[in-house]
Amino acid sequence: MKKALVAVIAASDSDLAVMSEAVKVLETFDIPYVMTISSAHRSPAKTTAYVEKARKEGVKIIIAGASLAAHLAGVVAAHFPLPVIGVPLKSGALHGFDALHATVQMPPGVPVATVAVDGAKNAGILAVQILATGNEALEKKLIEYKKSLAHGVLEKADKLEKIGWKTYIDEKK
Amino acid sequence: MKKALVAVIAASDSDLAVMSEAVKVLETFDIPYVMTISSAHRSPAKTTAYVEKARKEGVKIIIAGASLAAHLAGVVAAHFPLPVIGVPLKSGALHGFDALHATVQMPPGVPVATVAVDGAKNAGILAVQILATGNEALEKKLIEYKKSLAHGVLEKADKLEKIGWKTYIDEKK
Amino acid sequence: MKKALVAVIAASDSDLAVMSEAVKVLETFDIPYVMTISSAHRSPAKTTAYVEKARKEGVKIIIAGASLAAHLAGVVAAHFPLPVIGVPLKSGALHGFDALHATVQMPPGVPVATVAVDGAKNAGILAVQILATGNEALEKKLIEYKKSLAHGVLEKADKLEKIGWKTYIDEKK
Amino acid sequence: MKKALVAVIAASDSDLAVMSEAVKVLETFDIPYVMTISSAHRSPAKTTAYVEKARKEGVKIIIAGASLAAHLAGVVAAHFPLPVIGVPLKSGALHGFDALHATVQMPPGVPVATVAVDGAKNAGILAVQILATGNEALEKKLIEYKKSLAHGVLEKADKLEKIGWKTYIDEKK
Amino acid sequence: MKKALVAVIAASDSDLAVMSEAVKVLETFDIPYVMTISSAHRSPAKTTAYVEKARKEGVKIIIAGASLAAHLAGVVAAHFPLPVIGVPLKSGALHGFDALHATVQMPPGVPVATVAVDGAKNAGILAVQILATGNEALEKKLIEYKKSLAHGVLEKADKLEKIGWKTYIDEKK
Amino acid sequence: MKKALVAVIAASDSDLAVMSEAVKVLETFDIPYVMTISSAHRSPAKTTAYVEKARKEGVKIIIAGASLAAHLAGVVAAHFPLPVIGVPLKSGALHGFDALHATVQMPPGVPVATVAVDGAKNAGILAVQILATGNEALEKKLIEYKKSLAHGVLEKADKLEKIGWKTYIDEKK
Amino acid sequence: MKKALVAVIAASDSDLAVMSEAVKVLETFDIPYVMTISSAHRSPAKTTAYVEKARKEGVKIIIAGASLAAHLAGVVAAHFPLPVIGVPLKSGALHGFDALHATVQMPPGVPVATVAVDGAKNAGILAVQILATGNEALEKKLIEYKKSLAHGVLEKADKLEKIGWKTYIDEKK
Amino acid sequence: MKKALVAVIAASDSDLAVMSEAVKVLETFDIPYVMTISSAHRSPAKTTAYVEKARKEGVKIIIAGASLAAHLAGVVAAHFPLPVIGVPLKSGALHGFDALHATVQMPPGVPVATVAVDGAKNAGILAVQILATGNEALEKKLIEYKKSLAHGVLEKADKLEKIGWKTYIDEKK
Repeated sequence: MKKALVAVIAASDSDLAVMSEAVKVLETFDIPYVMTISSAHRSPAKTTAYVEKARKEGVKIIIAGASLAAHLAGVVAAHFPLPVIGVPLKSGALHGFDALHATVQMPPGVPVATVAVDGAKNAGILAVQILATGNEALEKKLIEYKKSLAHGVLEKADKLEKIGWKTYIDEKK
Repeated sequence: MKKALVAVIAASDSDLAVMSEAVKVLETFDIPYVMTISSAHRSPAKTTAYVEKARKEGVKIIIAGASLAAHLAGVVAAHFPLPVIGVPLKSGALHGFDALHATVQMPPGVPVATVAVDGAKNAGILAVQILATGNEALEKKLIEYKKSLAHGVLEKADKLEKIGWKTYIDEKK
Repeated sequence: MKKALVAVIAASDSDLAVMSEAVKVLETFDIPYVMTISSAHRSPAKTTAYVEKARKEGVKIIIAGASLAAHLAGVVAAHFPLPVIGVPLKSGALHGFDALHATVQMPPGVPVATVAVDGAKNAGILAVQILATGNEALEKKLIEYKKSLAHGVLEKADKLEKIGWKTYIDEKK
Repeated sequence: MKKALVAVIAASDSDLAVMSEAVKVLETFDIPYVMTISSAHRSPAKTTAYVEKARKEGVKIIIAGASLAAHLAGVVAAHFPLPVIGVPLKSGALHGFDALHATVQMPPGVPVATVAVDGAKNAGILAVQILATGNEALEKKLIEYKKSLAHGVLEKADKLEKIGWKTYIDEKK
Repeated sequence: MKKALVAVIAASDSDLAVMSEAVKVLETFDIPYVMTISSAHRSPAKTTAYVEKARKEGVKIIIAGASLAAHLAGVVAAHFPLPVIGVPLKSGALHGFDALHATVQMPPGVPVATVAVDGAKNAGILAVQILATGNEALEKKLIEYKKSLAHGVLEKADKLEKIGWKTYIDEKK
Repeated sequence: MKKALVAVIAASDSDLAVMSEAVKVLETFDIPYVMTISSAHRSPAKTTAYVEKARKEGVKIIIAGASLAAHLAGVVAAHFPLPVIGVPLKSGALHGFDALHATVQMPPGVPVATVAVDGAKNAGILAVQILATGNEALEKKLIEYKKSLAHGVLEKADKLEKIGWKTYIDEKK
Repeated sequence: MKKALVAVIAASDSDLAVMSEAVKVLETFDIPYVMTISSAHRSPAKTTAYVEKARKEGVKIIIAGASLAAHLAGVVAAHFPLPVIGVPLKSGALHGFDALHATVQMPPGVPVATVAVDGAKNAGILAVQILATGNEALEKKLIEYKKSLAHGVLEKADKLEKIGWKTYIDEKK
Repeated sequence: MKKALVAVIAASDSDLAVMSEAVKVLETFDIPYVMTISSAHRSPAKTTAYVEKARKEGVKIIIAGASLAAHLAGVVAAHFPLPVIGVPLKSGALHGFDALHATVQMPPGVPVATVAVDGAKNAGILAVQILATGNEALEKKLIEYKKSLAHGVLEKADKLEKIGWKTYIDEKK
């Protein structure tokens, strides 16, 4: 097994389903990764130890997803010198407004690269983009990926033009 | 000097002025305290070490004030088994909405007793109330304090009745 | 029956289910408690009388949960010299943003120790933490509780590592 | 002196300047009133006693202005069977969003007639409107007042048409 | 049939169910009322004409409920010299935050007495309170109503004490 | 087929159902239109090319609907010299608050005519209104449409008066 | 003087300074306009009459700017069959969040083309764009305007490149 | 001069002062960069061309700062396959809530690594962290930087302990 370049941390096992979107992207791009569950608040020692270990074993990026007063990414960033990507999760009464604020509003000196609420897929892509800054093959794959995104839209637009919006909507139901 | 019962942590020295309102209350009630500056993100090791030390030296309550993605109180609460009081601070573009969310929305298992945005004075009073649960003399002082609050209002109301609102407002200018 | 140390007040019987999470914690830690329903607005006299009675009978902490313009904790705090813990509840159109503001933004002099929206479990834990400031046996239990939280996370992380995220998520469905 | 029909309560003397806008309206419409300072949290006994006394002495409407977790109007409404008008005040970090939520979101059974943030003038007008439901002379005055509002706009519009917007703006500077 | 004292206007027929809560209160207190559907935007002429007619026929209070950019109460208030009660309704993506702002934030000179989002029941009670300022029999009924609210809470509290929270919650399911 | 005067762009095919409300209005008013799917982010080249082509072929108005960080209307407006109508869509955790901000808060120089969250129907009407500024027949149709809106309300009001609110609500169930 | 094509309405004379930004754009593009002050709430009859008159005299677009519970644009739109552009203004405690909601969230059937908070300049440009849908000379001017916007940016970028950011910032001070 | 690895784009020259904080970090870490002004809306062609050119010349990261409906980072991300860092800027009535939503809530497929409102300094640090994933010397510098952050806090804490909070606050005035 190749040495992991990315570590993905979910704050609780109820966050795994959303966070798996990040992992799927990493698998698509063949990025070796590790994944765990750890909480900034319930298992702080594990979180810190995991970050230290990850750094020593050559992990280059950590993706952390948490909801509510989402401190996980910030705590990881406090200990990790390389990029930390934060995914604010929407579960809870305040619908992710809380997690967004708690993830993105980091003070000067300790950034967290924040993606959209529940935006785990983009966290995975951002990790690939970061690795691609030093890996031309990966950059090419990303350019292909960008093309495939555009292509997917074009196909849908073509279909819409062909069958009309009424049929299109009916088919989607 | 008596053993500190309360530790007050400001996330940065720019927060000292607001956080000093908590300390003034502690002094008024003769509660021995210690105060420091430590950041959840810039000095995480110090923060954790300070919390451990505080606990060993008999500190019963920690008051933590921070702005933005205000993680300080949450990080302290992750390591401290006794009450942690969080003061969300308003500095920054989002006016404390961010700090409020990041402080109060703690996940199940690890509470932070949150007071109002910039509510450091109330953090001090809450600390005294907590200590008073095991100290009748202190409880009596708090009852006196409550009376003095009411008395202060009554005096103002009397003055208002006597001089009328126009004069009252003019005098305040 | 032991003398109650904590009183739990729900603003209406529709809040009982959420507020029972606080009570379950108190039972787990063997803290004697009383529980009632009382509204700051519909039964203000009962609320005030209950608070007075609670104080005289030795209650040390009151936990109050309410939704909307959630005044219950503030009204209790106006009459109770010891710690009042407020639980903002999310029911209603504004999803708890209203109850959070109405509970946490107390003016100087009268704090309410506020926990997360619907965070009744943490209200229970905070009450135990407060009592533990004067009770070493309870503090030890809380340290054990903290360990059990961490242990729970570690077990989930181990399971995740063993069976992989796909199986883990499938099993949870 | 005529018996007061309206009581105006400011939660603190720093709120007097804003709340005086309500009083000025009452004076313009010759409505006898009383005014005091009382806090839901710092002087709850006075607040309740004042409300009881007001009711017994024939006060028909209470106007209450408060900021932050603005409970004053709600507490008054809990004890007063006739209309309570709430003025949410903007002072504090959250700019009145908190006071608005804490004033307007009253639970079923106990309404507070809420006006705009810092809308004390409208609280005064609303009080006059309420009294005018049983007083035709007052209703006529209100119809005149409505005309004067319209007239004031028409005069400004005429002036604008005559001197042009550039001059108008220059003159206002 | 007695002359209507209150007019209730729903902005659309989809708002009737919520607004009927106001009407039920009026029926309980034997207040004669009329009810209609009219929109500030789709039927502005009818709205204005209805308000004029209501005033001439002796209506003393208008209750208006609308969602989204809820202008109905404000438009009514622009034409009606007596109290207008606004009920912001929550339907729509922004959950009533929009209707609350559009209803309560009226400019100086033209108040709308705003109740909670979807708070139609309280709009009805407020209308009764307003009429009671000139009607002692009605005031007495309101005092009885206040007592019944308190009594309802006390009964629930007694039941809770008797059967315990577990049984209480189970019975409610 | 007549030359299209309006182009409707949905940011993704999941937005087609909402956006079809705009198209239905255009069909009702016999406005020739084209519709496509294109994303500001996934297919930026297509978006720009489509806008250029639309302009050259005589399209006078573009309606663009997007959710989240809804840039589509803004990107279209950057390239199109004639009116761009933006429809913020509510899908996603933040309920459309994000799309509203991203659509309406355009910087000086490049307006987007923004309608309500999910307000695609109004986008269609606005497009018709814009075309009607140079087309009296269309203006007459819009005046008829306005009358039909009022008429619809009047019919409902009549029905309500006839059958009473209880029956009306029952029938709607 | 040419017949006015655009009418600009400010809700109060304190809004004239912001709203003059719309007028300046109209002057730049040689669009004949009229401007007045009228309030949806204080001068509703004038507002309606003004709209009727404007329509009869051939006004094609109305721009309306208001703050707080900003109903002006909606009231205008209720009476005007052609495009209404709404400018939410920020004055007041809630910083324009209220005016934005009250302006943009119009119900189906009656759109208001909303621009940014205090975005009066864009309201002017949007009016020109609307008129340009039937006026090729105007469309050309708008294309020139778009170029000038781009040119302005390029000049600044060139200057920045030439003198460096430190000097650039210093010169701006 | 070395080939630029980072491009910094400010949406307008009024954003240069804030965005220069990113540049200062890049200079501190000796990262070659280029900086320009370009707007997603006013100069879209330049923006796209600049991004293309940057990519061809080997730029690895683009930092984009914009306010209001802040589309700049998203537009850049639509064309750039490598990491884009977005800085939401607070200028404007809505205090940066709008820019935060418009920057961070990117749809699946096209991430923007978002930092805090006005968090340009952290954008610079994040860029360095990204480059450090492939550059051990840079990683070491970042570890040193982290230590210096902690050291700065420790020095302040020592000073506080030595001179006391009263003197500390006085000295800062």
